[in-house]
Amino acid sequence: MTSEDDILLSDDQGAVRILTLNRPKARNCLSMELMTALSGALARAATDDAVRAVVLAGAGPAFSSGHDLKELTARRNDPDRGRAFYDETMRTCSDLMLSIVRLPKPVIAAVTGIATAAGCQLVASCDLAVAATDARFATPGVNIGLFCSTPMVALSRNLSRKAAMEMLLLGDMVGAEDACRLGLVNRVVAPDRVVNGATELGRKIASKPARTLKIGKEAFYRQAEMPLDEAYAYAAEVMVENMLDAEAEEGIGAFLDKREPQWPR
Amino acid sequence: MTSEDDILLSDDQGAVRILTLNRPKARNCLSMELMTALSGALARAATDDAVRAVVLAGAGPAFSSGHDLKELTARRNDPDRGRAFYDETMRTCSDLMLSIVRLPKPVIAAVTGIATAAGCQLVASCDLAVAATDARFATPGVNIGLFCSTPMVALSRNLSRKAAMEMLLLGDMVGAEDACRLGLVNRVVAPDRVVNGATELGRKIASKPARTLKIGKEAFYRQAEMPLDEAYAYAAEVMVENMLDAEAEEGIGAFLDKREPQWPR
Amino acid sequence: MTSEDDILLSDDQGAVRILTLNRPKARNCLSMELMTALSGALARAATDDAVRAVVLAGAGPAFSSGHDLKELTARRNDPDRGRAFYDETMRTCSDLMLSIVRLPKPVIAAVTGIATAAGCQLVASCDLAVAATDARFATPGVNIGLFCSTPMVALSRNLSRKAAMEMLLLGDMVGAEDACRLGLVNRVVAPDRVVNGATELGRKIASKPARTLKIGKEAFYRQAEMPLDEAYAYAAEVMVENMLDAEAEEGIGAFLDKREPQWPR
Repeated sequence: MTSEDDILLSDDQGAVRILTLNRPKARNCLSMELMTALSGALARAATDDAVRAVVLAGAGPAFSSGHDLKELTARRNDPDRGRAFYDETMRTCSDLMLSIVRLPKPVIAAVTGIATAAGCQLVASCDLAVAATDARFATPGVNIGLFCSTPMVALSRNLSRKAAMEMLLLGDMVGAEDACRLGLVNRVVAPDRVVNGATELGRKIASKPARTLKIGKEAFYRQAEMPLDEAYAYAAEVMVENMLDAEAEEGIGAFLDKREPQWPR
Repeated sequence: MTSEDDILLSDDQGAVRILTLNRPKARNCLSMELMTALSGALARAATDDAVRAVVLAGAGPAFSSGHDLKELTARRNDPDRGRAFYDETMRTCSDLMLSIVRLPKPVIAAVTGIATAAGCQLVASCDLAVAATDARFATPGVNIGLFCSTPMVALSRNLSRKAAMEMLLLGDMVGAEDACRLGLVNRVVAPDRVVNGATELGRKIASKPARTLKIGKEAFYRQAEMPLDEAYAYAAEVMVENMLDAEAEEGIGAFLDKREPQWPR
Repeated sequence: MTSEDDILLSDDQGAVRILTLNRPKARNCLSMELMTALSGALARAATDDAVRAVVLAGAGPAFSSGHDLKELTARRNDPDRGRAFYDETMRTCSDLMLSIVRLPKPVIAAVTGIATAAGCQLVASCDLAVAATDARFATPGVNIGLFCSTPMVALSRNLSRKAAMEMLLLGDMVGAEDACRLGLVNRVVAPDRVVNGATELGRKIASKPARTLKIGKEAFYRQAEMPLDEAYAYAAEVMVENMLDAEAEEGIGAFLDKREPQWPR
């Protein structure tokens, strides 16, 4: 496990890598430094064969409060009034969110406390999410003159249209049970069970064959953006390649033989 | 407030403009005259700086029963059997619905009684909707040989696929609580609280900075139609411009200083 | 009614054609023979004017357990390791699912027991679905090294993103009430009421004018893939043609005259 001085902690529980945002006093807000650290950690998790699933958590009372407003405001004194830095920030943030979607391993958010603005976007960008009963979600940018336009990209792909619009236009907090009903999180558990619950989900997924998970996750997000007939043509090709992979050969063989599969490397 | 003889009433409550369909005896059906009046009123609300949010309500027992079937039927005697008029009607109606989506200010439906066919489409087209406990929704065109094909455009962007298909194929009434569960409305309140409830929502939104709302609403519907990576590239640009706007400067500054923002004009 | 030796039974209840997968000992798994039989039956239902709606059911304790894994595995001994056969299988299956979506008549799933993998996809591909209280749904391919990539195409167009991802990554069974809440089925009824319930829905829809249903179903799936403005331009044209059809003339006329419509042939 990395030092507690680090802004991002990394801990492996079996094949599950738990990445913990560790700026508790700053409510784990996403400074350029923290986004860069998280992007790097995700890139390493992507290529580390020992890692089969990733859990994303936050140290302290908040999951993440979104962008680092002090860091952004300080750059208003730049000669370009901050434009270059804001551009870099928004691209870094969007690339981070896309890297979660494109990671060839499932990413599970473990949400305690508040997840707001880009923090809420992090949750929406994960494949699955477990929330504490007292977790709360919001896209409150509208209240400070900065609409949550990048968070809406992820949010509106999780929630129905009017529910997403309500969160974005009002900026109010949404409780965990409502977030679950609306589609933003999969499960609500006791606060002291969140990281364990997400890790157990990760362990369960990690026990499944790795290439199959990679094939499936990639295909999920790609087909989602295609018209129906193209999606079927694409997914049918994916299925054929998957059938010819040693994982399907072993898995289907074991199923028919009523024995436990021995997943190939 | 406009005269009660008018087919469309307009009343400003602070920064909230309440537009009320006022053909109660005809269940506020959308004649060409009423659609034109509503389109004009929305265009004026769009450019009137005193208006920050719009509430759309219906006078009498119905919100709106959809197209004016008598008006449509009368044109079967035209030399072209009505084709030109039907074409004009459907384009006018679609343009009206698109104008709600494109209005740079939030539009909130306040639904009492029935909202059927194009009346249901009006609700689905609004950004938010408040319904009375006794409100009912349907797309019953299938029962009269005229499938609700234009209403389905809005409906299917609010509801899940099978829920939308059920409303369209069966044409049955759906109660307010079910409509809320399915995503067609945001809130259900007592019948005598509907217009006030929608107006309070509008007031709350109207208290937020105007350009930020405009930026956010426009970006919401635009990014919704893009692939994920394009959506992020677009939304990131929107965020940079928003950061450089005086509203974000004041709003974020006030937040960091722990004072009330003074929104610039 | 066809012979009980047949792998697909066909029974007409009035204008509702009930197609029953009839390989109960094989849990109605979708062998090439069964998929071909079902595709043929759907093609005949499409062109038979006496048929107004189709119910899809399964004989025995399962609705369908998906692909025929024994049939697939046997072809690993082919010179090409099965590639040509897997390719044919996946294309046949995708074409079958597309044929349900494109059938000019509503198709209603009647689900008893398990509906897994391509069996779950069949349910998701139908326009409507009725499930028994003890019906269960899963996309468990991940457990046998063959991700449910083609089933996900249909599933992800019924469920919210995280709910679909949870089914796909975990492969766990989802009960009927949860499936209803998530959008995969429309109604949950007692097990002995499922086929009757689906047939009653079919009868109700079959009483509506046939061309109107055809127009509406086709338009629904086409507009769903278009940007909003294109969807409106397309749907408005559909409405004009529908208005000029004898069904709308009779249906609207009957409604205004307060009499029962006499649907034209």
